[in-house]
Amino acid sequence: MTTVAVVLLSGGLDSATVLALARRDGFECHALSFRYGQRHAVELEAAAAVAAKLGAVDHKIVDVDLATFGGSALTADIPVPTNDPGDDLSAGIPVTYVPARNTIFLSFGLAWAEVLGASDLFIGVSAVDYSGYPDCRPEFIEAFERMANLATKTGVEGTTSVHVNTPLIAMTKAQIIDTGLALGVDYGLTTSCYDPAPDGACGRCDSCRLRRRGFAEAGVEDPIAYRHPVTT
Amino acid sequence: MTTVAVVLLSGGLDSATVLALARRDGFECHALSFRYGQRHAVELEAAAAVAAKLGAVDHKIVDVDLATFGGSALTADIPVPTNDPGDDLSAGIPVTYVPARNTIFLSFGLAWAEVLGASDLFIGVSAVDYSGYPDCRPEFIEAFERMANLATKTGVEGTTSVHVNTPLIAMTKAQIIDTGLALGVDYGLTTSCYDPAPDGACGRCDSCRLRRRGFAEAGVEDPIAYRHPVTT
Repeated sequence: MTTVAVVLLSGGLDSATVLALARRDGFECHALSFRYGQRHAVELEAAAAVAAKLGAVDHKIVDVDLATFGGSALTADIPVPTNDPGDDLSAGIPVTYVPARNTIFLSFGLAWAEVLGASDLFIGVSAVDYSGYPDCRPEFIEAFERMANLATKTGVEGTTSVHVNTPLIAMTKAQIIDTGLALGVDYGLTTSCYDPAPDGACGRCDSCRLRRRGFAEAGVEDPIAYRHPVTT
Repeated sequence: MTTVAVVLLSGGLDSATVLALARRDGFECHALSFRYGQRHAVELEAAAAVAAKLGAVDHKIVDVDLATFGGSALTADIPVPTNDPGDDLSAGIPVTYVPARNTIFLSFGLAWAEVLGASDLFIGVSAVDYSGYPDCRPEFIEAFERMANLATKTGVEGTTSVHVNTPLIAMTKAQIIDTGLALGVDYGLTTSCYDPAPDGACGRCDSCRLRRRGFAEAGVEDPIAYRHPVTT
């Protein structure tokens, strides 16, 4: 019997790699994306292309109004910073953090998983080359999984429990890229920029910087276009 | 200093009572409702009336597309049952259960709480006179609270943590009604029916049955209109 999974798919590099890993492991993958008032809605087109290319059986885009609460440079009228975010949390959580975003996304994934009878959720969080968001840490994922199995029918009826898979959690960005390339992921379909334009990614936001550093460390050329050169 | 709270407000009897309790305890209350594809969208008008009457400082209605996943009589093309749900879980979880609904609603509440700097979330779940939904149980609420404090900035920066308040958790429906009446709640503004019509609540769905039984046990007349008489 095929094992069914819901895979959160942003259109970025990480979640594309996660979908490729879930497909490699034989999961029937239902891809889930969100239109959440983000500046970078172009990522939804990327998500659709990635879902089709990597063989997801279907792809839903759910409207989620996070902009109504504000509080983030990704959804409110706060400029996206172009400074180097650094490698640790000493500078605090950046303004691109969207309050409770992964909690909300995983909750929708949980709803779909329960309707599908899926046993697995996949999310492309990494606690290595990341922006210091609290909802990318393994202790959050473990707490979510525990809560999820009390929130749903399984908590009462003892039916299929849900496992939240984070295959990238301990990988550097370079390792993620190596993994995806080995599985045939076309990173030219993906977009990571928080402030994209028709002529390319900005190259300066923290997401672009993490991506470019990852490709550099992997010794591979990033197939997408950037508006600004690499700065050191 | 005023303590800030986000109160989930459905327009029903329970959450109106919760808002009255939070106001009594001195909270500055931000009321949050959801347009989630429910059959009974009339409850949003009730929520707005209740929020205004009970002195919430503001009231947001967030669009949440749960109907896209289906799986419930409240959001999909499944008839709302009119049989008596009984008092325990032996008959299983009813088809009016909406997968992961409270998880999703609390996650949005968490997002707003983080933006507001609110320390408290309120939700009107009861584990006594309820429909057997897994996400109304105290063990779910405790797991959600634990997850919530790892999901947000507090988990990294040690700022205000969030407490999920469930003041009705151990109350019978009659006790909830008594409590609300003592605080001046006008239950004529509320609606509980899963299948309402312009001439009143159905009187037969599990939510109507729980409500009518509660008023009967409290020895108080329910101020709203019903289309069908009480059956025994």
